[in-house]
Amino acid sequence: MSENDPYQSTGQREDEPLPRVAAADLRDAWPVLDAEARIEGFRYLTSSDAEEFFLELPAFDRATIVTGLPTAEQRWWIRALPPDDVADVIQEINEEDRSRVLSLLDDSSRREISALLAYSEDEAGGLMNPRYARLRPDMSVDEAISYLRRQTRERVESIYYAYVLDQQAHLLGVVSFRQLMMTRGDALVRDVMETDLIRVPEEMDQEALSALFAQHDFLSLPVVDANGCMKGIVTADDIVDVVREEATEDIQKIGGTAALEAPYLQVGMFDMLKKRGGWLVLLFVGEMATEGAMSHFGVAIEKAAILAFFIPLIISSGGNCGSQASTLVIRAIALGEVRLRDWWRVFARELAVGTSLGLLLGIVGFVRIMVWQNTFKNADDPTVGFYGEHWALLGATVGFSVLGVALWGTLSGALLPFALKRFGLDPATASAPLVATMVDVTGLVIYFTTAAILLHGTLL
Amino acid sequence: MSENDPYQSTGQREDEPLPRVAAADLRDAWPVLDAEARIEGFRYLTSSDAEEFFLELPAFDRATIVTGLPTAEQRWWIRALPPDDVADVIQEINEEDRSRVLSLLDDSSRREISALLAYSEDEAGGLMNPRYARLRPDMSVDEAISYLRRQTRERVESIYYAYVLDQQAHLLGVVSFRQLMMTRGDALVRDVMETDLIRVPEEMDQEALSALFAQHDFLSLPVVDANGCMKGIVTADDIVDVVREEATEDIQKIGGTAALEAPYLQVGMFDMLKKRGGWLVLLFVGEMATEGAMSHFGVAIEKAAILAFFIPLIISSGGNCGSQASTLVIRAIALGEVRLRDWWRVFARELAVGTSLGLLLGIVGFVRIMVWQNTFKNADDPTVGFYGEHWALLGATVGFSVLGVALWGTLSGALLPFALKRFGLDPATASAPLVATMVDVTGLVIYFTTAAILLHGTLL
Repeated sequence: MSENDPYQSTGQREDEPLPRVAAADLRDAWPVLDAEARIEGFRYLTSSDAEEFFLELPAFDRATIVTGLPTAEQRWWIRALPPDDVADVIQEINEEDRSRVLSLLDDSSRREISALLAYSEDEAGGLMNPRYARLRPDMSVDEAISYLRRQTRERVESIYYAYVLDQQAHLLGVVSFRQLMMTRGDALVRDVMETDLIRVPEEMDQEALSALFAQHDFLSLPVVDANGCMKGIVTADDIVDVVREEATEDIQKIGGTAALEAPYLQVGMFDMLKKRGGWLVLLFVGEMATEGAMSHFGVAIEKAAILAFFIPLIISSGGNCGSQASTLVIRAIALGEVRLRDWWRVFARELAVGTSLGLLLGIVGFVRIMVWQNTFKNADDPTVGFYGEHWALLGATVGFSVLGVALWGTLSGALLPFALKRFGLDPATASAPLVATMVDVTGLVIYFTTAAILLHGTLL
Repeated sequence: MSENDPYQSTGQREDEPLPRVAAADLRDAWPVLDAEARIEGFRYLTSSDAEEFFLELPAFDRATIVTGLPTAEQRWWIRALPPDDVADVIQEINEEDRSRVLSLLDDSSRREISALLAYSEDEAGGLMNPRYARLRPDMSVDEAISYLRRQTRERVESIYYAYVLDQQAHLLGVVSFRQLMMTRGDALVRDVMETDLIRVPEEMDQEALSALFAQHDFLSLPVVDANGCMKGIVTADDIVDVVREEATEDIQKIGGTAALEAPYLQVGMFDMLKKRGGWLVLLFVGEMATEGAMSHFGVAIEKAAILAFFIPLIISSGGNCGSQASTLVIRAIALGEVRLRDWWRVFARELAVGTSLGLLLGIVGFVRIMVWQNTFKNADDPTVGFYGEHWALLGATVGFSVLGVALWGTLSGALLPFALKRFGLDPATASAPLVATMVDVTGLVIYFTTAAILLHGTLL
């Protein structure tokens, strides 16, 4: 094992009946340990270290630990978590083990957690904590403060905001602890509470929810059902995790992989191959169309092999421009900066950007050929410069092709995410490799068509 | 203007001396309005709507509004914000206007904000709020509660955690409001407080800071200087913004653009061209090496033009594999799942993954040639199948080249982010287009070398 082996760092395993692992050492070695070593290392922690350590772990790792321990210990650890965290852990456990782990809980927690599990993991209901501080509208501020004081003993996660509910649990308003503290003790909660508040529907998607948190700088938001009844709260610390997860998924998709859904080093080899191989084969099959296009222009290549030399340069320009445009638009859509109906504004912008970038690259391409022409000698005929007498036409062919390909790549890359979203798909599926593959065939067509026009009667 | 024109939706601009814009309409039209229209729209809001609206805006938009208003109104709006938000706004204002806007503040706020501005925007000091709830260790719990009650009047952002400081402002411990509420009133704060707490150094990078928040599910963390003196707090709601910004930057870099640093629709055309054109020209110049490589193999192409037909397919496989590997590794590094010294574990994994994926794609490529060979007729000689008598050797050339290129692309893509980080650069600079460009030349070399070996004496 590596220098990170937690047992080596204690240095005295032989002598002690119960070796102890320092939490810091385990934390350090964690990313590179397999499931078994993690469970073993965890069991060697002192009990107070273990508790702190367990609470720091993400749901995926908590599930590994819980399912790997003897049943009595499982019960202890699963009960140490608040209900929303238990629900997250349960979702990481495979189907067979779920009901067994659920059976370790007391009845009321099991009911709460089963209710949470009915929600999808990526909607507000699946993220919320069903335990929150609640008040009645007809309480006085003094009563409210001492009532909240009692509630803190019942493992309510946050008392910073207290929600005011009627008998049927309809959400009437919210009052911050700070407001209660600033108000005369005999005032009524109903007169202090803020009634103009943001209510999150249970089924709100986590992406929309994180945009809401980012926009308003809230520490928590109430989740209500269709009848306006309060179901729980979502807190900013959970949203930090959500935003990281969403970004990870988008980044992985942009790179042309299916979302991994677990830390990189933890994904099994088979899973990794499935998530990457699927897209790669699809892209490979798509890219095969380039062979068809190339063979269509085979006569031109046979006449002037030099045309083939510029193929990678030209088609990669399209791919690069498309990759830029698609990632910018994917991110702008995810952040809510750009909406579906703004597509034509994006189109107009990218038309201008793509044309300018295409001109820039086209000129660079032409200048490159001009410089080589005048600097190097042609191997066959040293009197005509590197690219021969028709170098200017060749340069023009490359230049105009790059312009066309860059513009086409930019526009395709910018509009594909909108098209995907329009049809209910994730815009992030417009990965850099997908856009590159899509524009490669068109790039070849643009190039050889330009060549046919400009080089007819000279090279062709 | 579009259907989103806020003035059209009031429908009666002509008749009213002071037309009012509904906040919802302005919010809706916001993304597509230019700076001038935004300021105009904002000034037409009722004053209570305007306040709510202003507080929802990101720092970039707040800066636009503040600098666009008459000085008297500027003073009002800039004073409505807590000091960390003012610092963010100031950072979005161009240098000339900064000192003028700072002069609108009262002395004590200006001192606080100047202190914040001394920090870099992306470190803990630049994110923190210097106003927080503080207690002395020798207070009783009852004294502490009523002291906090007074502090809430001084615009302290959060009283959920109160920090215990000695006379020299050294951070001794933290006590949550909940703990205070659960404790006997005559207990001392020093006996209730938690002393084993995480202290964030002022200069901690925001990426490390958000990893800390994600791991521990805190709502706030204290920031201390080198002497252990408390400087401020960072709250989870600010971290939500940070995580979104960091992900946006990484995504833009992965797509091959410099980070935009403003919403997509707000970036000026010149800036957009600069941030995209720079990378595109660099990639284009890099990709020119492919022309050199191709001309090196020009004789082979002249002998067997069919070899050229597979060039886009083969080099794109390398690009796609590289793009997958680099984005996965970039994200794993950003999330702290993988550290610099883990590079060889990643190498070992990607060696296995790259070989498997390469074999898969290579087989698909060979099968494709086999199927075409037996399905279609050769135009020149209908008796020998689509690719002629040496089709199996051609298929093997394509298959082995794809294997080699895919493996090479995967390994280059996986290791480049580590190399960048090792030299102090941002791993996200290993964009999909950069990796693709880097492996294109090698892809050509692998392909033509394989062809020279396998096709020697037949096609070549």
